[in-house]
Amino acid sequence: MIRDSILKNRSYRRFYEEIDIKLETLRELVDLARHSASAMNAQPLKYILSWEAQRNSLIFPNLTWATYLRGWSGPAEGERPSAYIVILGDTEVSRFWDYDAGIAAQSVLLGATERGLGGCMIANIRKEGLRKALEIPSRYEILLVLALGKPKDKVVIETVGPGGDTKYWRDSEGVHHVPKRPLDEIIIVS
Amino acid sequence: MIRDSILKNRSYRRFYEEIDIKLETLRELVDLARHSASAMNAQPLKYILSWEAQRNSLIFPNLTWATYLRGWSGPAEGERPSAYIVILGDTEVSRFWDYDAGIAAQSVLLGATERGLGGCMIANIRKEGLRKALEIPSRYEILLVLALGKPKDKVVIETVGPGGDTKYWRDSEGVHHVPKRPLDEIIIVS
Repeated sequence: MIRDSILKNRSYRRFYEEIDIKLETLRELVDLARHSASAMNAQPLKYILSWEAQRNSLIFPNLTWATYLRGWSGPAEGERPSAYIVILGDTEVSRFWDYDAGIAAQSVLLGATERGLGGCMIANIRKEGLRKALEIPSRYEILLVLALGKPKDKVVIETVGPGGDTKYWRDSEGVHHVPKRPLDEIIIVS
Repeated sequence: MIRDSILKNRSYRRFYEEIDIKLETLRELVDLARHSASAMNAQPLKYILSWEAQRNSLIFPNLTWATYLRGWSGPAEGERPSAYIVILGDTEVSRFWDYDAGIAAQSVLLGATERGLGGCMIANIRKEGLRKALEIPSRYEILLVLALGKPKDKVVIETVGPGGDTKYWRDSEGVHHVPKRPLDEIIIVS
């Protein structure tokens, strides 16, 4: 059920880093993105895969984690993602890539969920740092990094009242709470 | 299986218009979007639902269909979408909504596929026309229209060689062909 996958597909930020993700799994996930919708079918997205410690360590320091969790600068060693998929926009194909990137990211994350994995779509990236670290040619714009692993976080969804605070937060037991707006607030005409 | 849903979830542009989609179904689909990832969890997306002939007829003339199919200006009466979900960006919440809209649209379309429905994400919209027709306040930016129905199109995916033409096309029997770039072209580092 898509609904079950979407409910399970939370943004996870702590992982069992010792559990590897194979290259073949990442390729299968990108293949889901490949079969997803693209504006004018131009398919401007390109992908960098990372599933080994060395390349992972080049990516991690260029990511900003969970802005709302003050005093937490990201997952500690041992709880970091086992793999990454970097989504790039190829300027030589089309610059109409923002919706495409969201669509592709959702396909990848749902596919990951189905495999017992999970992750986080990260847009808050130190782009020049990542470009240098991975030697990404200027032809490509860095759009999103998908961090992937076997999730360790416990995440619960809550519904906030109209105009309520949507900042996620972590309680004293480490449970991550995500306030979502109610359905009748986001549907404005029906 | 997510993969099966993604493969079945083609962009459909002709429908069995006589098959209704209920308001409750549209609400369930938006609820999938509601549970999907949102940048900084700000949730700036709002939704207009349309599932009755009168409102549908206000939306349809403001959409541009399948630019690549010359001589075809869109589905004829009787083959038009049974329902629409208009995705808006609420400027009073956050303007960082492009990835969110792609993510939400993919959640909705996958949910529709699972229900035996299908549709098309349309970004080529006559926005001022649609704004007037639906009396959309200026607070909201029009992002995407999801056209939904029981698909009548037959769609096949093909893989093009490197640098090949990605324009979709319709053959003499009305089958819609969608060329997708090969996996090894879109993965640039692995």
